[in-house]
Amino acid sequence: MPHMTVPVVWSDDCLLHVPGGEVWVGVHTPGTEVPQRLEAIRVALAEAGHRFVPATTHGDAPLLAVHDPELLDYLADAYNGWVAAGFPVDPGQDRVVGYLFPTPGLLAGLPLRTPTAAHARAGRFCYDTMTLVGPDTYRAARAAADAALTAVDLVCAGEPSAYAACRPPGHHVTRDAFGGSCYLNNAAIAAQALRSADHDRVAVVDIDAHHANGTQSIFYERSDVMVVSVHVDPGAGWFPHYLGFADETGRGAGEGVNLNLPLPEGTGDHGWLSALEAALEAVARFEPGAVVLSLGVDAAADDPESPLRVTAEGYRSAARRVAALGVPVVAVQEGGYHLPTLGPLVAAALDGLAG
Amino acid sequence: MPHMTVPVVWSDDCLLHVPGGEVWVGVHTPGTEVPQRLEAIRVALAEAGHRFVPATTHGDAPLLAVHDPELLDYLADAYNGWVAAGFPVDPGQDRVVGYLFPTPGLLAGLPLRTPTAAHARAGRFCYDTMTLVGPDTYRAARAAADAALTAVDLVCAGEPSAYAACRPPGHHVTRDAFGGSCYLNNAAIAAQALRSADHDRVAVVDIDAHHANGTQSIFYERSDVMVVSVHVDPGAGWFPHYLGFADETGRGAGEGVNLNLPLPEGTGDHGWLSALEAALEAVARFEPGAVVLSLGVDAAADDPESPLRVTAEGYRSAARRVAALGVPVVAVQEGGYHLPTLGPLVAAALDGLAG
Repeated sequence: MPHMTVPVVWSDDCLLHVPGGEVWVGVHTPGTEVPQRLEAIRVALAEAGHRFVPATTHGDAPLLAVHDPELLDYLADAYNGWVAAGFPVDPGQDRVVGYLFPTPGLLAGLPLRTPTAAHARAGRFCYDTMTLVGPDTYRAARAAADAALTAVDLVCAGEPSAYAACRPPGHHVTRDAFGGSCYLNNAAIAAQALRSADHDRVAVVDIDAHHANGTQSIFYERSDVMVVSVHVDPGAGWFPHYLGFADETGRGAGEGVNLNLPLPEGTGDHGWLSALEAALEAVARFEPGAVVLSLGVDAAADDPESPLRVTAEGYRSAARRVAALGVPVVAVQEGGYHLPTLGPLVAAALDGLAG
Repeated sequence: MPHMTVPVVWSDDCLLHVPGGEVWVGVHTPGTEVPQRLEAIRVALAEAGHRFVPATTHGDAPLLAVHDPELLDYLADAYNGWVAAGFPVDPGQDRVVGYLFPTPGLLAGLPLRTPTAAHARAGRFCYDTMTLVGPDTYRAARAAADAALTAVDLVCAGEPSAYAACRPPGHHVTRDAFGGSCYLNNAAIAAQALRSADHDRVAVVDIDAHHANGTQSIFYERSDVMVVSVHVDPGAGWFPHYLGFADETGRGAGEGVNLNLPLPEGTGDHGWLSALEAALEAVARFEPGAVVLSLGVDAAADDPESPLRVTAEGYRSAARRVAALGVPVVAVQEGGYHLPTLGPLVAAALDGLAG
């Protein structure tokens, strides 16, 4: 049997977001969510012989199915509003960043109002200081969502699997707030599109090193989309700190349809794949018609953004097990920040997915 | 009749907090809440002939009457925890600052957990990036609270009024979260101490340029402490952005016992004193046994932190009207950032208070 390939959905617009750094505990640092990530993936997947498919535009509707219109309006205008208000913009650095955040401690039980001033709005819609907005951020985020939706189209047209080279990543974005280097939740958008198209039940399997807090929150009260996430324990000091614990199991109709498997720092292939196995057993019992794989490869040993120690072989096995569920798989790129190994890690995962 | 003076409660420890700047929309700026503020006040009040009284220590109990123990524990340990965790500390700059904040958008309805990691805790307890914590911040904040409590002691011992030279200021601190260059809510601590000592009803009159969001939130559901605040409209883009609107009138037993009078940018003596008059009419109807005056002088025309245009004469009139309520007044210093005029502004207010 010839080696199978996976269609790779690509948009050059995903390269347009050039944050030029992050604000990390008050210090401007170079950051790791850079366009070079996507180039590294492109080279590795081309070498592996996967075929590239251009992303097509899908309009607002599939985004509005999981995000508040307020969030989209904000992202579309944030940079221009910032510049118009006279706030600092450094050449080559995206700069919209908040300074005051409406935490429960500040609000003290009063309802959240959406401010009109640019420097206040920044903290309303973005919950951290590391996810800067620049002139082309929204265009890139839209392109990433379109890539995910194009991958959905391919699967709906009969492909057993498809991979979207999404950048910026998406799984930290909730219905109305972004952060963690993410702006639109590509995986949630894809899951909802699969749900709307053909499938009564859809599962999102998130193997990024960090908890899928955004995806979790979007589907937390729904019984038709399961979210499972294998990630480093947020209680050990890892993003997103406040979410990703094992006792978050869904609410209302969604009770029991959310599964978090936090792992200790230093977990390697064995522990990681065992946790994934448990997650996939729950997914299999859920009997989804399709799966979205949130493919972050930052659980790899060399990655600067996590203390997990997964190998390329681990990623290959993980993707193979997801494929073995026997339903169509839409893989969307999430994190992964070690430029020398990022491409081979994604290639290994797609190899596993292709079976 | 000889010109009356007001006892000025002083602690050198209030000078120990040297933030060395703020992080403002991702940029480190010099900041305006500097020790020189207190020196400027000291010189002006000494020249005016007011007598200085040393602050005495009052222990934890009066602080815990308005703040969560978690907040005090955090402030006591934040800097050491930060250094121990290896986070950046610049010489001469206080540096504990958050990067991720548990906004409603992030939490999406899940309960707030208090993290253990230093960089996460920073965003749990401080709701902005401008209120840095350094090695002596808590000692200074405790000294400011002790100054306020000593002023309460003086009034309880028969002084018609007393002024506490509090620094850092306090009125933005809620029960469990700080920000806005404030760490402990000196005014709320004083109001609660007055309430506990002698008085069935106490009013806080806040004439700082910014809304008294912390004081409001601490007493929002209580009928025994009224909070009135005259300030620049937060909806016009001013701190604290999310709170300080006229429709915040209290809740439950506290309904109708909270009054906000937001003013347009550029408001001068006439509009400001008219609003204060309306506030004081409400206070008079409330019939408090004592008043805490949150005396920020940043509503002055030259102040860099607000667009109001109040004069020293305006401050003199305002304090005179507060004194005319005919009940003991504890004045605590809040904001005021224009070093050349800060001292004379406070002196004018105390002159009005002494009547």
